[in-house]
Amino acid sequence: MQSAKPKLAIVGGTGALGSGFARRLAAAGYEIVIGSRTAEKAQEAASQLPAAAGAVRPSGATNAEAAQAADVVLVTVPFGSQAQILDEIKPHVAGKLVIDATVPLVPPKVARVQLPAEGSAAVAAQRHLGEGVRVVSAFHNVAAHKLQTDVEIECDVLVFGDSTADRDIVIEIAKAARLRGLHGGALVNSAAAEALTSVLIGINRTYKVDGAGIRITGVLPA
Amino acid sequence: MQSAKPKLAIVGGTGALGSGFARRLAAAGYEIVIGSRTAEKAQEAASQLPAAAGAVRPSGATNAEAAQAADVVLVTVPFGSQAQILDEIKPHVAGKLVIDATVPLVPPKVARVQLPAEGSAAVAAQRHLGEGVRVVSAFHNVAAHKLQTDVEIECDVLVFGDSTADRDIVIEIAKAARLRGLHGGALVNSAAAEALTSVLIGINRTYKVDGAGIRITGVLPA
Repeated sequence: MQSAKPKLAIVGGTGALGSGFARRLAAAGYEIVIGSRTAEKAQEAASQLPAAAGAVRPSGATNAEAAQAADVVLVTVPFGSQAQILDEIKPHVAGKLVIDATVPLVPPKVARVQLPAEGSAAVAAQRHLGEGVRVVSAFHNVAAHKLQTDVEIECDVLVFGDSTADRDIVIEIAKAARLRGLHGGALVNSAAAEALTSVLIGINRTYKVDGAGIRITGVLPA
Repeated sequence: MQSAKPKLAIVGGTGALGSGFARRLAAAGYEIVIGSRTAEKAQEAASQLPAAAGAVRPSGATNAEAAQAADVVLVTVPFGSQAQILDEIKPHVAGKLVIDATVPLVPPKVARVQLPAEGSAAVAAQRHLGEGVRVVSAFHNVAAHKLQTDVEIECDVLVFGDSTADRDIVIEIAKAARLRGLHGGALVNSAAAEALTSVLIGINRTYKVDGAGIRITGVLPA
């Protein structure tokens, strides 16, 4: 069912989280376009990705070009760059599904919950991109360094968005990255998972572990 | 070590969550004073609680009297009643540890995250009670109907507060109720667990289950 897979841009795809997704999703047969500030950097990262048998080789481009080329755009950028990078891709994502993974960490106190005035980075993204763009948020709590390996990750992915069908698409992408995605409700609910990331960072420090995650209990495996 | 256990008021102790805690903590040997709007209702609830061998029988009183009598005050009331009930206990909790379990659910859309202007119900409680009161928040995500039984509850308790020592006391109380408590960081971080409760309510509906909870993975059992 290769043909049913959307072509996926990973904006900020040379970062820790983005490159982890690129790796897992390329291996799962998705056609990937890595986006970065410069096309060269993106192409370099893309050249190091695996590719599934028979799948199109991952490519690299600027963030804007990657967004333009893709059906679904996954945004994995630091909170401090979110607004600027959304500006860059905005002309190219009308009607498309944009998966925002931004966590509103405010250095230096990244273990302290500091949600933005909009209530969440996801709602900020939706306002920034406008109503014509389908924003879903997800992947806030996954440890990037684990995503870059083949280990089984003990962390569920809460998926937020105002369209159930769009959340379903993201749950399918999570599954391809070997993560269990769960419907987390409306986009505003993203505040829960975004805030939780600061809590998990604190737990990593307090308990001297390096990849605390969450599981939703009481729900059968997807 | 019975003598080391603080005397515990459970304000709103005739409600679903409060009565579940009262039951488990009385069985664990804590001296419990149930607080309710009327002393009669509280006494009636207290008379139905178990008591550990050699422990003082649970008693009942008004919320204010219960708070006055206790060392540690657990507040388990609906969000809509929080401010009024904190007003009632405020004269009696100076210097005491108040554990606030309030979740800011706003009916009818209880599955929608709607954090208060203060950022969290916990910070609202701290502002309401003033700096002289040691506020810790916890127990936001535990299903009340499970607490009322003897089942093992598959849900961790994130404990938030600006004092590590006070969080430790609450983690000890959670343990007595047979729940794993974890340090969740500063009181402001309570927003994460409070928001998560709306997400869990939505998950219960979406997946047709009745007690979704959370586990923090990657941290060894306490």
